[in-house]
Amino acid sequence: MTLPRIGVFDSGVGGLTVLKAMGEQIAAHYFYFGDTARLPYGTKSVETVARYAICAARFLEAQSIDLLVIACNTATALALPQIRDAAHVPVIGVVEPGTAMAAEISKHRAAIVIATEATVSSHAYRDALQQRGIDAYEKACPLFVPLVEEGWIDHPVTEQVARIYLDDAVAQAPNQADVLVLACTHYPLLAPLLRRIVSAQMQIVDSAESTARVVRRMLSNQHDAVILSDKVVPYCGATEERRTPISEGSSPRDHRTFRFYVTDSVDKFKRLATRFLGRQVDHVEHVDLGG
Amino acid sequence: MTLPRIGVFDSGVGGLTVLKAMGEQIAAHYFYFGDTARLPYGTKSVETVARYAICAARFLEAQSIDLLVIACNTATALALPQIRDAAHVPVIGVVEPGTAMAAEISKHRAAIVIATEATVSSHAYRDALQQRGIDAYEKACPLFVPLVEEGWIDHPVTEQVARIYLDDAVAQAPNQADVLVLACTHYPLLAPLLRRIVSAQMQIVDSAESTARVVRRMLSNQHDAVILSDKVVPYCGATEERRTPISEGSSPRDHRTFRFYVTDSVDKFKRLATRFLGRQVDHVEHVDLGG
Repeated sequence: MTLPRIGVFDSGVGGLTVLKAMGEQIAAHYFYFGDTARLPYGTKSVETVARYAICAARFLEAQSIDLLVIACNTATALALPQIRDAAHVPVIGVVEPGTAMAAEISKHRAAIVIATEATVSSHAYRDALQQRGIDAYEKACPLFVPLVEEGWIDHPVTEQVARIYLDDAVAQAPNQADVLVLACTHYPLLAPLLRRIVSAQMQIVDSAESTARVVRRMLSNQHDAVILSDKVVPYCGATEERRTPISEGSSPRDHRTFRFYVTDSVDKFKRLATRFLGRQVDHVEHVDLGG
Repeated sequence: MTLPRIGVFDSGVGGLTVLKAMGEQIAAHYFYFGDTARLPYGTKSVETVARYAICAARFLEAQSIDLLVIACNTATALALPQIRDAAHVPVIGVVEPGTAMAAEISKHRAAIVIATEATVSSHAYRDALQQRGIDAYEKACPLFVPLVEEGWIDHPVTEQVARIYLDDAVAQAPNQADVLVLACTHYPLLAPLLRRIVSAQMQIVDSAESTARVVRRMLSNQHDAVILSDKVVPYCGATEERRTPISEGSSPRDHRTFRFYVTDSVDKFKRLATRFLGRQVDHVEHVDLGG
């Protein structure tokens, strides 16, 4: 069976939540590129992020990918048009899938978007949601990524920080906002903690799951066999545990392959990736793109 | 009067605490290079940090500097020998001055060193202190830099995080450790908060002030006129407020100049630099070193 070859790009480990969501739903050969020597993109300018992202796209295209997923909210928000212009394969970002999901489920047509500083400054989510008739308040949460990378996923300090950020967001947000968009790929790891903090009426949209859904739909038109799961709205439930581990089972699941490329330390990536994916990560190669 | 030309290099804004300490003590032309497009160095490998630092040294040498200060603990800890090999001017790092100061004031010959992950992993401080007969426990505090950059300098969350880190450090440290070395250039901004948390017997050594002292001594042998202040142990006092603002006064203070070069957003740098230096920052130029 010829499985599709999917390139996945992020500045670091955050995009692994997107890879994990896709891996649970789609059998494919995955090529993950983490630009760890130059992370985080969240604090960098449009020009710098575009330059780095196009550099990564070139590397992944050299692995003969059929499709490129920009599993990085900052790169998508700041540089998707530039990456599409530069790429020779279809490119899917994380902003459009997340906003489409939010628009699908918001009853009050109002949302809160939490993200890095750069994603918020770009207003990519606000603009995309407005086009779908949703008012949005965007809140930068710069401490969430370091807290996740410190491993304080379910820690009192993280809960306190989350309460400060979300109290402020709720106070500033349009009345009756009923969707919280996790517009950074690190944030799905905080979803259980955030679920406890926000009101029961607030639905959480996870851009990793939303993006996997879009990729699955796109591929299902071409490759029936590759679809492993037909979950439709994987993370809007209030309390339901929806994440199944990447288990080793029957074909075509067995044929999935995962290769990882990073621009900085392989060991540090392996350690973090194991936490993000909930499984041992092998085949990590260091690559030097210069700079 | 011909003032010395001092190059100051850091991955971002942290080195501004070193610049500030030098600016208060030494009249000079200062050229500050912040490699903000590639920060933070604290999570990167030795090879990557060395490559970036040498690149920055080359840029500063092109500004005709007489002396290069590596105002970045990670770059000093990981790559000082490589930078010295590559440079054509004297190079001063921040590790040696901080450890010399610690050795000078520790009565019990035991210290706690707090730093980024990369600085701790390098064990540069532990090794340098051991050579001076001081036992040291090194503790990585990866949340301090993002907390400082969030502006939560004196915030309950920062205090809670600091208590967690320092309780752990004190529990692991050699008995009767009486010096706390702030081995990251961001940490001087947390000094008042840390002062409240640690015991009264614990003296705090700030590598910014220590480095300024070493530079001042070096220059005073050659240029008597440039010395603005003769403070000797600027931040070991328990409660004393020792930081004087960079005020505009009489010559040669008036002749000091400050130029700033960054590889990423000029605006973001100006905003953070104003917080670090306590004064408006102008003359910030964007430079592109490639990569």
